[in-house]
Amino acid sequence: MERVELLDTTLRDGAQCEGVSFSVRDKIEVARALAELGVDLIEAGNPGSNPKDMEFFERARGLELGPSRLAAFGPTRRKLAAAGEDEGLRSLLAAGTGTVVVFGKSSPLHVIEVLGTSLAENLAMIEESVAFLRSRGRRVVYDAEHYFDACAADEAYALETLRAAARGGAEVLVLCDTNGGSLPGTVSAIAARALAAVGAPIGIHAHDDSGLALANTLAAVGAGAVHAQGTLIGLGERCGNANLAVAACCLELKLGRPCLAEGALPRLYGAVRRVAEIANVGLHEGMPFVGRRAFAHKAGMHVDAVAKLPASFEHVAPELVGNERRFLASEVGGRTTLVDRMRAIEPGATKDSPSVARALARLKAMEAEGYQYEGAEASLELLLRDSAGERARHFELDHYRTIGEEPSKEGGGKARARAMVKVLVGGAEEIGAAEGVGPVHALDLALRKALKPFFPAVEEVRLVDYKVRVIDSADATAAKVRVLIESADSREAWTTVGVSSDVIEASRIALAESIEYKLQKDGVAAEAASRE
Amino acid sequence: MERVELLDTTLRDGAQCEGVSFSVRDKIEVARALAELGVDLIEAGNPGSNPKDMEFFERARGLELGPSRLAAFGPTRRKLAAAGEDEGLRSLLAAGTGTVVVFGKSSPLHVIEVLGTSLAENLAMIEESVAFLRSRGRRVVYDAEHYFDACAADEAYALETLRAAARGGAEVLVLCDTNGGSLPGTVSAIAARALAAVGAPIGIHAHDDSGLALANTLAAVGAGAVHAQGTLIGLGERCGNANLAVAACCLELKLGRPCLAEGALPRLYGAVRRVAEIANVGLHEGMPFVGRRAFAHKAGMHVDAVAKLPASFEHVAPELVGNERRFLASEVGGRTTLVDRMRAIEPGATKDSPSVARALARLKAMEAEGYQYEGAEASLELLLRDSAGERARHFELDHYRTIGEEPSKEGGGKARARAMVKVLVGGAEEIGAAEGVGPVHALDLALRKALKPFFPAVEEVRLVDYKVRVIDSADATAAKVRVLIESADSREAWTTVGVSSDVIEASRIALAESIEYKLQKDGVAAEAASRE
Repeated sequence: MERVELLDTTLRDGAQCEGVSFSVRDKIEVARALAELGVDLIEAGNPGSNPKDMEFFERARGLELGPSRLAAFGPTRRKLAAAGEDEGLRSLLAAGTGTVVVFGKSSPLHVIEVLGTSLAENLAMIEESVAFLRSRGRRVVYDAEHYFDACAADEAYALETLRAAARGGAEVLVLCDTNGGSLPGTVSAIAARALAAVGAPIGIHAHDDSGLALANTLAAVGAGAVHAQGTLIGLGERCGNANLAVAACCLELKLGRPCLAEGALPRLYGAVRRVAEIANVGLHEGMPFVGRRAFAHKAGMHVDAVAKLPASFEHVAPELVGNERRFLASEVGGRTTLVDRMRAIEPGATKDSPSVARALARLKAMEAEGYQYEGAEASLELLLRDSAGERARHFELDHYRTIGEEPSKEGGGKARARAMVKVLVGGAEEIGAAEGVGPVHALDLALRKALKPFFPAVEEVRLVDYKVRVIDSADATAAKVRVLIESADSREAWTTVGVSSDVIEASRIALAESIEYKLQKDGVAAEAASRE
Repeated sequence: MERVELLDTTLRDGAQCEGVSFSVRDKIEVARALAELGVDLIEAGNPGSNPKDMEFFERARGLELGPSRLAAFGPTRRKLAAAGEDEGLRSLLAAGTGTVVVFGKSSPLHVIEVLGTSLAENLAMIEESVAFLRSRGRRVVYDAEHYFDACAADEAYALETLRAAARGGAEVLVLCDTNGGSLPGTVSAIAARALAAVGAPIGIHAHDDSGLALANTLAAVGAGAVHAQGTLIGLGERCGNANLAVAACCLELKLGRPCLAEGALPRLYGAVRRVAEIANVGLHEGMPFVGRRAFAHKAGMHVDAVAKLPASFEHVAPELVGNERRFLASEVGGRTTLVDRMRAIEPGATKDSPSVARALARLKAMEAEGYQYEGAEASLELLLRDSAGERARHFELDHYRTIGEEPSKEGGGKARARAMVKVLVGGAEEIGAAEGVGPVHALDLALRKALKPFFPAVEEVRLVDYKVRVIDSADATAAKVRVLIESADSREAWTTVGVSSDVIEASRIALAESIEYKLQKDGVAAEAASRE
């Protein structure tokens, strides 16, 4: 089947997403991550409008990106200007990329109302801009902005703009659903007509304002498009661009159309996390194919069926995209889930092993207390190790105290908190104290301070996420709360849980388990603890 | 255009989403939110598999849901059993809903491998189960599980299962893309063939495992389906179900097919937030139509164009769904929403009133701090009153201190907390102290103790619900939290909000506002405060 060329615009359209801002260093990291997947084109910025983007292109000159190519992005020349003297086009050349993406207007509305020029001049702007860049040896991708909306108003003119770009020498004509308002049926029909009328290769650029960016991308490919634009994790102006990770999975796994480097698909799970981390945005874990929830089974009926026959509730095999199947331990799940996990600790475990029975009993008791282990896999592993007699106790938290205080108005100043904890390690003890912005923060710092002399590795632990859920809200502030804490070191992330009617006590439980899990997984022997 | 019937399964399929767990009270609140939108059917649980669901149906008997109807969900009878003696079907009847949703197997693979019975027995199970429920006066929705995958294997048999349900008397035959692996073209073709072959009304139930749940829903409707299932904010097993809020917008605004109550669309923005708060999940703010980012313009070029011509970068008007346009670079917000509320306090208020301008500025400042007033109307009213110069200050909280402590092991006993608060009322002051199960509980008790001598009415206030949400989790335990507190007296319930990096301080703010709102609404004059 014919390959679909992918263009990722995380660094350009993605940077227009609320809350996203890339440093030049970030941009280089994102480009590397995309190159490792074999994304054909990496649209990395608008050098004419953004000095930071120009700096990136300068620093990216020596960057080794394998078969991936960087592309600079910018508008056609200004109205009534000579292409060769247009500042925007000159900065596109200055970016030094072999490929440039030029966008132009497709609809009379935008030409007249927004650009303030004539329909004929717009056609000249498109053709001359593309031709000028071609004459300087650039490959040109032409983005036809608002193409689908333009067709609703005047399809004949919209086609004229495509013909102008084709005459100028554009390699591919990209139909943009700039406002994200089009439906797949429309996209498919218009793309087919454009292909038939102009005869040049067609591409698609879709936005998710109607929740249909992916469907529109696939519809265009179905109609003959051979180039698709989007952003790896769906970042982009307003509701975002077509999610390229999901699009790549659909193209390769559902339609049999290759688009990433051969063998790259299993790297997708890691790549989306890397890009999310660089962009500093939370990854939507329900994301198709590569979300952590994408192959997570909770309903007992489903868990049993998947254990018998994975295809019964999985549309593709999780390994294909580097993901994994997870059976969520929960009230609706059964023993099957536990046995699977227990085997990692006790290889011979079966449904009838005493360790599994103990774990199940313990799980039920804890769930009755308000614990919930789906999403708190590290705490679950500690519970299983405990049931298998394989849990090392590295330390004991003997006592803690937190003080939260708002100084009286005369004292001025904001609320502050302090915490003091005492830990027992083997025969030794240690007290740690710290100040924080709230009692939980203070407690976290104090606990790590107390443990550091025994276990220097605790310094590597970063807290990534902190969630509080009231379990039975009927009693309001006297109700129990469940705290989930996600921690990470340089290699992996894990989540622990604590439950109490006191939010600080619940946090303390989850914090202590997080550190215990870290020491466990690092293989730190409990007896080996010694003060430095 | 013909109406599309909507079935929301947030309370059933949505509850199978990782991290989601509804109390009976939560379920009632979600049902109310859906009823306010006019969602036709609210699938609220599987009474045969979950005692909590049965409790919900018992408590929901007297619930006023307008034209919305509750539905119980469960499987067809077990193999080789009599329908009238099947426990599952009996609990569906016991749920006492006028409509029931029954699901059955569509594919030989599932009948033989998972169910372990014959193809003929499966057809009998479907027909007899539906017929039995019909004979007891129930309207029956039939969910054909794995329908699209089943057609790939053996479409003739899949159609037989639909015919069995139709013979039994099912009102609508719902084709389920249970694994979420189907593409819109397939869905459209199969739905058209089912409709032609069986002649009964057809529905669609789509999952988002390929990112196409919405597209598949619209494809089925395009092929003649008149019933669509999903969850309001897209919660559901694995990657989630079709997002019903987005589907409703597409159906009504793009396809002209009514599906919600007339005039309900502008309430959608608030409704999705309410459901997200109840489920205690972060709302994806890039959500089409109703996400906060859905009409947020960041690129300077776009901001300029939208200011000239909103349609240039907006596919629909944000007001249609209760959302608003936001310019991220230069904060120019929508006042229209506030004017309405301000009129309740200041009858002559207009867009240009100084009080409205002040409220808007205040709101923006608070939102920048992490406040969100969608679910905290009492706090919003206090803010508006403040801006209109109509807020009475009944008391001032001068100082507080909380102590959380876990006594050392020798001391035995559990974690306890104490709080002390000092309030100023007019010229007088009072100190209250209390013990509680956690510092927030202790603080609540202490605050009310201190205020009671001045305002006996504070005794009537009950705390009904308490929710904590981490706003920006990048900093983990040092991140800000938003606390929502729902209070009630014998007449009504109200919600207040507090934000701080300290969960106790955030709770303190929300607790104090709750009491202030109570005194305000009871018309207690600030000056009239006097010690008894």
